[in-house]
Amino acid sequence: MSVHFRKLALIGIGLIGSSIALAAKRQGLVDVISIATRKQETLDEARDLKLGDIYTLEAAEAVRGADLVIICTPIGAYESVMKSIASALEPGAILSDVGSVKGHVVKTLTPLVPAGISLIPGHPLAGTEHSGPSAGFPELFTGRWCVLTPGPEVEPAKTEKLASFWRAMGSQVECMDATHHDMVLAITSHIPHLVAYNIVGTVADLEAATQSEVIKFSASGFRDFTRIAASDPVMWRDIFLTNRDAVLEMLGRFSEDLSALQRSVRTGDGPALEAMFTRTRAIRRSIISAGQETAAADFGRPHE
Amino acid sequence: MSVHFRKLALIGIGLIGSSIALAAKRQGLVDVISIATRKQETLDEARDLKLGDIYTLEAAEAVRGADLVIICTPIGAYESVMKSIASALEPGAILSDVGSVKGHVVKTLTPLVPAGISLIPGHPLAGTEHSGPSAGFPELFTGRWCVLTPGPEVEPAKTEKLASFWRAMGSQVECMDATHHDMVLAITSHIPHLVAYNIVGTVADLEAATQSEVIKFSASGFRDFTRIAASDPVMWRDIFLTNRDAVLEMLGRFSEDLSALQRSVRTGDGPALEAMFTRTRAIRRSIISAGQETAAADFGRPHE
Ligand SMILES: NC(=O)c1ccc[n+]([C@@H]2O[C@H](COP(=O)([O-])OP(=O)(O)OC[C@H]3O[C@@H](n4cnc5c(N)ncnc54)[C@H](OP(=O)(O)O)[C@@H]3O)[C@@H](O)[C@H]2O)c1
Ligand SMILES: NC(=O)c1ccc[n+]([C@@H]2O[C@H](COP(=O)([O-])OP(=O)(O)OC[C@H]3O[C@@H](n4cnc5c(N)ncnc54)[C@H](OP(=O)(O)O)[C@@H]3O)[C@@H](O)[C@H]2O)c1
Repeated sequence: MSVHFRKLALIGIGLIGSSIALAAKRQGLVDVISIATRKQETLDEARDLKLGDIYTLEAAEAVRGADLVIICTPIGAYESVMKSIASALEPGAILSDVGSVKGHVVKTLTPLVPAGISLIPGHPLAGTEHSGPSAGFPELFTGRWCVLTPGPEVEPAKTEKLASFWRAMGSQVECMDATHHDMVLAITSHIPHLVAYNIVGTVADLEAATQSEVIKFSASGFRDFTRIAASDPVMWRDIFLTNRDAVLEMLGRFSEDLSALQRSVRTGDGPALEAMFTRTRAIRRSIISAGQETAAADFGRPHE
Repeated sequence: MSVHFRKLALIGIGLIGSSIALAAKRQGLVDVISIATRKQETLDEARDLKLGDIYTLEAAEAVRGADLVIICTPIGAYESVMKSIASALEPGAILSDVGSVKGHVVKTLTPLVPAGISLIPGHPLAGTEHSGPSAGFPELFTGRWCVLTPGPEVEPAKTEKLASFWRAMGSQVECMDATHHDMVLAITSHIPHLVAYNIVGTVADLEAATQSEVIKFSASGFRDFTRIAASDPVMWRDIFLTNRDAVLEMLGRFSEDLSALQRSVRTGDGPALEAMFTRTRAIRRSIISAGQETAAADFGRPHE
């Protein structure tokens, strides 16, 4: 089934929005792309990059006549975005987003969505640590998951149409409950980021002399954490503010486990340490056999 | 100055030992390489891979007549290795190692080193998560640091000769105090690995249904941790047993910081979270400007 939308409206045109614009255009999935953002300079940048066909600072203007609207701003802006577009939405349109948290998004958007509009929240599990309209590239979603969390009231045909749109951009699509999404993402993404931010913060507090050597020798593991911790601060602030419960639940388990490991180090319990370090290998093997990673011996980087 | 050794003895021929053998041979740094290891099958594997010239299960045999001896076993084996080779070491020889912890190594080896032998502990900051003789490759050390921690009694010419050997294999060499090495490595390498093992362990304890989704969606950050946590359990057990004090010191700071971050999440303190996530960017920038990393937007992996 070929998927096609007349008019795609993107509200927010950063890394994710611009990547959607580029991928949708390249695959011929839409006739017209209209782009709205908050700042004039960002809009000008998007225009210079030829990301769309219509450019406006008025989100309501952008969504008029659109059969697909995707909100691509930080989650903290959703409520105000939604208030400004609600009355301009075209009956029958699909309203989606790309936010990294879903339960909160459902809670914020649902009461503001007019009748006749299908709200299908989405989350492409793809990203880099770069932001803004120039960070996007059309292959960003290739081979990546996109999770959709439609409510029970949504017509299956609408969900299928949006799923086809993401598949046409190269993604694999999975539907699930918003709460379940948030718990899974808390441990696959949010806790890893929190821990990475934390260790980089610990280094930031070291005495200057040690710190400069840490930077010099960062390839030993620390560098991988700084890469994760270089992601956009506003986006991550919003994630932790809006997925608080799942994050605290998973962080509680993580901290308990860390205390146990710390005790094994303190007491010099070799067998316990070795058992722990062996047990974790099974998870790694599952990831490889699930096709989510190769076993290449390069920490993900080609040998220099 | 061209560097040259008559006979290089490698005790232990896993990832690091085999990489040294391949690099030293390729660069023509030695006339003869003798290899000793514990197990017959490992020795046979090394022979099949043509890693050296002499193969033996007797470490004492391997070091006889060698002007450079490098211990490449897990740190836990050092004491027994040292006891078996001490009387066979050639006067004037350089005795080094590649262990990831240095203070403990100095403490273990020093009392056992005969007069006339220059003990210069070393640590190449290079590795992969693979082990054994077949895991090695001659480019492993290219562009990587190698830290040497000679005591004050060592002749500078000996240290310089060993440094030249590592430079000829592609490394940059830095000399420092063993204790300082251990503190820097605790935060650049040991804590990142401990945290990675810990988060993978937390996932290993999740209910089966959630766990299979975590594996499916592991590309969102978690996968990078599993890669780190796939390293050899025995090697890491030894690291935590032997660098206990520095690890506990840094882990204490890390845990304090994590508690503060957890509190910010719990109280929904957006400004504190954003400030924290912004502060960490400066460290990332320092790493890039120190030439330790590119700013490529690919989490270290080429775009699929
Ligand atoms: N980056 C990732 O790795 C990733 C991955 C998956 C999902 N996501 C989700 O994707 C969304 C966008 O992330 P991104 O990485 O694309 O961010 P980004 O590059 O920082 O872009 C954000 C865009 O939103 C606009 N914007 C910000 N505040 C706004 C407001 N109050 N009203 C209207 N527009 C506003 C910005 O425009 P101005 O310059 O005009 O303010 C910019 O165009 C977030 O919800 C995030 O959770 C991100
Ligand atoms: N891997 C890394 O990322 C990395 C990085 C920097 C430094 N290091 C350091 O390098 C050293 C070796 O690590 P590796 O990764 O090369 O390990 P590896 O691949 O597991 O190889 C270890 C070698 O030591 C031998 N061995 C083990 N126990 C022994 C014993 N009791 N007596 C004699 N030989 C023994 C093993 O042979 P058998 O099969 O015969 O037992 C094997 O040849 C460790 O001290 C580690 O701290 C590792």
